[in-house]
Amino acid sequence: VVNVLLFDDFTTLDALGPVEVLSRLKDNTGVTYASVSGGLVRGTGNAQIATVPLSEVKTFGIVLVPGGMGTRKLADDETFLGQLRSLCEKSEFVLSVCTGSALLAKAGVLEDRKATSNKMAWDWVIRQSRRVDWVRKARWVVDGKFYTSSGVTAGIDMALGFVSDRSGQDYAQKIASGLEYLWNSDRDTDPFAGV
Amino acid sequence: VVNVLLFDDFTTLDALGPVEVLSRLKDNTGVTYASVSGGLVRGTGNAQIATVPLSEVKTFGIVLVPGGMGTRKLADDETFLGQLRSLCEKSEFVLSVCTGSALLAKAGVLEDRKATSNKMAWDWVIRQSRRVDWVRKARWVVDGKFYTSSGVTAGIDMALGFVSDRSGQDYAQKIASGLEYLWNSDRDTDPFAGV
Repeated sequence: VVNVLLFDDFTTLDALGPVEVLSRLKDNTGVTYASVSGGLVRGTGNAQIATVPLSEVKTFGIVLVPGGMGTRKLADDETFLGQLRSLCEKSEFVLSVCTGSALLAKAGVLEDRKATSNKMAWDWVIRQSRRVDWVRKARWVVDGKFYTSSGVTAGIDMALGFVSDRSGQDYAQKIASGLEYLWNSDRDTDPFAGV
Repeated sequence: VVNVLLFDDFTTLDALGPVEVLSRLKDNTGVTYASVSGGLVRGTGNAQIATVPLSEVKTFGIVLVPGGMGTRKLADDETFLGQLRSLCEKSEFVLSVCTGSALLAKAGVLEDRKATSNKMAWDWVIRQSRRVDWVRKARWVVDGKFYTSSGVTAGIDMALGFVSDRSGQDYAQKIASGLEYLWNSDRDTDPFAGV
């Protein structure tokens, strides 16, 4: 199962780009959208997505954490960070896109791990925790069960990388072709690192 | 204003990829999600998006029509096709992604115009109207107020092309960089045409 953690002012494509890939995982048993209180959550582009309350999520597999302007407020919300920490501990894999990794860092689950994030918000992100080994030049970074990606569409590349690690490169490439997507499959190539 | 026309079993990324770009248009005044009856509409990846009924849409600018499996049923739904035709006539620009162009074709708004679509559904798409000048090898096609793109992520490239046509290539490239997206900016380059 893929649990997508949403919050107001998330970047819509951060979440729904990777979901389009992850929902095609061979052994995927479904996608759930959750938020702290449940109900409609508004992302960029005025998209309102239906969510269940986090307390109703009982099956844990892959958790996906998008980024967006909403992360700024949540990085100081101890209740949210506690729930995020618990969700990450219960999940088999934790994937984040863009400034989603700032929330993971602040929740304390990335300590002594390599991680990356959006390049335009970089200075703010790395201030969330100095105990993370931040990697600036990376399309995405894998460390144990944690996959963190750079900004927005890097999440699609990371999701394909995740599928590749589970089901092989050919299967990932097949999903990419189905989406007519030119997959940037080298996680170390990051044309935006200098931005 | 951008009006996004949704229906059950649309491909989520077809709609929300381009929206992430179009919502950043210089003169964008908002994004509305509409469906024939309003309410929650379910796309791929189990994403449920809140929509207003089409009858409540009173401002017309850009209309975005995604593709997806749901198009198969709608291509035979005369009521839907009539509403789509009317929406296209009132709108300044009509953008479609993937099999969205099959609906435009069946609604009769693409007659004697060039258009493209998803390559995997190609044979079904072109059967929807022989009066369209279908262009197989194209990332996206522009003919008058109609922008039609190939499958799924080609819609993001098309949306950036649309922004480029309105506000210049530099501005489009700036949006792409903000999304850390490697824009395939040549509409005639289509690596999936042979698929």
